[in-house]
Amino acid sequence: MLPNGFKVGGLQSGLSKKKGKKDLALFVSESPASAAGIFTKSIIKAAPVITDIERLKRGGRFSAIVANSGYANACTGDKGKKDAENMCSATEKSFNFETGSVLCASTGVIGQYLNIIQDDFKKNVDLLKSNIGTFSKNEDEAVLAIMTTDTFIKKSDRKVKVKNGEIKIWGCVKGAGMIYPNMHGPHATMLSFILTDAEIESETLQKILENSADESFHCVSVDGDTSTNDTVIVLANGQSGTGKLSEADLEKFIKAFDELTLELAKSVAKDGEGATKFIEIEVRNTKTKEDAKLIASTIATSPLFKTAIFGADANWGRVIAAAGRAGVKFDPDRVDIYIGGVHTFKDGVVLNFSEEEAKQSLLKKEVKIVIDLKAGKESSKYYTCDFSYDYIKINSDYRS
Amino acid sequence: MLPNGFKVGGLQSGLSKKKGKKDLALFVSESPASAAGIFTKSIIKAAPVITDIERLKRGGRFSAIVANSGYANACTGDKGKKDAENMCSATEKSFNFETGSVLCASTGVIGQYLNIIQDDFKKNVDLLKSNIGTFSKNEDEAVLAIMTTDTFIKKSDRKVKVKNGEIKIWGCVKGAGMIYPNMHGPHATMLSFILTDAEIESETLQKILENSADESFHCVSVDGDTSTNDTVIVLANGQSGTGKLSEADLEKFIKAFDELTLELAKSVAKDGEGATKFIEIEVRNTKTKEDAKLIASTIATSPLFKTAIFGADANWGRVIAAAGRAGVKFDPDRVDIYIGGVHTFKDGVVLNFSEEEAKQSLLKKEVKIVIDLKAGKESSKYYTCDFSYDYIKINSDYRS
Repeated sequence: MLPNGFKVGGLQSGLSKKKGKKDLALFVSESPASAAGIFTKSIIKAAPVITDIERLKRGGRFSAIVANSGYANACTGDKGKKDAENMCSATEKSFNFETGSVLCASTGVIGQYLNIIQDDFKKNVDLLKSNIGTFSKNEDEAVLAIMTTDTFIKKSDRKVKVKNGEIKIWGCVKGAGMIYPNMHGPHATMLSFILTDAEIESETLQKILENSADESFHCVSVDGDTSTNDTVIVLANGQSGTGKLSEADLEKFIKAFDELTLELAKSVAKDGEGATKFIEIEVRNTKTKEDAKLIASTIATSPLFKTAIFGADANWGRVIAAAGRAGVKFDPDRVDIYIGGVHTFKDGVVLNFSEEEAKQSLLKKEVKIVIDLKAGKESSKYYTCDFSYDYIKINSDYRS
Repeated sequence: MLPNGFKVGGLQSGLSKKKGKKDLALFVSESPASAAGIFTKSIIKAAPVITDIERLKRGGRFSAIVANSGYANACTGDKGKKDAENMCSATEKSFNFETGSVLCASTGVIGQYLNIIQDDFKKNVDLLKSNIGTFSKNEDEAVLAIMTTDTFIKKSDRKVKVKNGEIKIWGCVKGAGMIYPNMHGPHATMLSFILTDAEIESETLQKILENSADESFHCVSVDGDTSTNDTVIVLANGQSGTGKLSEADLEKFIKAFDELTLELAKSVAKDGEGATKFIEIEVRNTKTKEDAKLIASTIATSPLFKTAIFGADANWGRVIAAAGRAGVKFDPDRVDIYIGGVHTFKDGVVLNFSEEEAKQSLLKKEVKIVIDLKAGKESSKYYTCDFSYDYIKINSDYRS
């Protein structure tokens, strides 16, 4: 359920050349909202990313996010920058919003122009404006309009009881390929928009988002390819009517927010291009958090590991090989590995485990890999998917 | 043609469970040779790698390399270490070589024991001893015995005219998967053995090998997965009779040696698991050599790039996206990209290039990608292959 004061929707505007595909989405707050955003750290930033970073830097409050699928508006130079600005200003004009109060996002093929003609684009926004709403159907239409190779709608919501009432948080995410988000400060083409009616100022919101992303969006990879367009934007419009949150209530909000981002991030791995399995990798008992993350992400992006899991092959050797090349110093003779709950490797040596039992556990839709370094007290989880024939199929003819 | 004083060969000993597969190879010098070696930098080092590093550290001269395929003898603990030592000492006994003068290498499945019984193993070596020789047939048998998912024999040789006669260099390589060699000092499972009858002391030989690997073995990737067993060993037995080389002759030797390692490294990418195309990536005009290498290797290990090339899709967007996330600072607005000779991207903006012409160039067996940063004078080349359905097939049931 959408938080108070938000309306969303999506329609087919013709920006995508896919027949019958919704391609234009709006996420609108009826009153200006505080905002936070994190964006791709790639040196190649798409025009909408540059536009959003500039606008968020200027500060102030924001009324809407306008997003399209089909073209990423990346590597499109000055003309692309103008297209992104035109998307925003056409939306501002249609709704009579303040100049600079709209954020934008794009996803799709890199390097082709959106060719936004402001008047034509505004007509589409006008049309969509009369079709946005607060129903689940509206949510679905908005998410459908930002999907590319995604196969299902990824959205989630939370309610948080606070002293003076109830706060709602709603979020959606798109992303199935070019997924290895790395967004810090103002990061894939993963697009995620999170709406809440909590009253939280931008600075606090930004911190909450950054911390949350480190345990969610930054712990997911489909293919190890970081996108030029990765974007997460949060809008908080304060319309819950619960006022400024007490420290205890803020804690509650953060807990719910973290749950939501983790659910959204996991859903990206579940819908990874060609994925047949969702994989959770847990690296335990490392000296530092960074060690755990580095090993987990190296395993998660290993094509050999991912193809083995596709084949339901308990090839723990590929797990330890990936861990070994991660650049973290550890004692190989202390390492334990569990594949789908089966203890395959103990203190650096293979165990006489049941291959059949391991295979059965890997035939499930959700697979858990644990690697225990017994070197410290830190740990980290990472989420990914297997590498299947369909990954090759999807990506060898993506543009055609 | 093998250098003077070397004999090689291979046979089926039963170490590999693949029916009819040669699995035991010998590379033997009739007089003790100086040696150099580089090995995987993974923290998880296979037992034969540990054994070789120890033996090379002790110094002295070396008479043979014994190698097997089928099992990698990695993650096998103390028992695996004993197996590696047993392989060496059985070979020493069979040939009456000095203790410590044999090096070893293994490739295959990680984590299963070789279970070497010295006497049994020695019988196989005895048998092979009577079958080694200097003919092309012997070379082929030796290389076949170290191949795993390789589809063709990868060997090469060079002759170098020097003041006092002629020096020969011969080398072979195996490797098609888990290829992302990273060996410095004493790096995939790529195994390469290089034999020469030049007279060069170990210290100089080691330097020549390390420098050469940086432009050859370290510039090749199939899947971005560095192995626990990567090994390159060079033996130089001085039997050319040309004596100690003058500086000018050493230069000539190094040139031929570098040509040979580059040819061997390229052949690994050409035989990459499931590869349908060989890809050369050249990154030009960077500030530092490291920048060029980092960008080239990031592109070469991008699944999205590699699947696009498999589909003959001139998706330069995936090239620039990979470059952008490589961690190198550069000005996106100065970048040019050429795909198969077609200029697709100039000064940060897409060109109106012929998709048809680009597609035709990508349908060839060898593809060249150039990315020009116009930021400096350094450059680097990297070699890889495309990602095909067969990559998934090969790796989803490797162990069965």
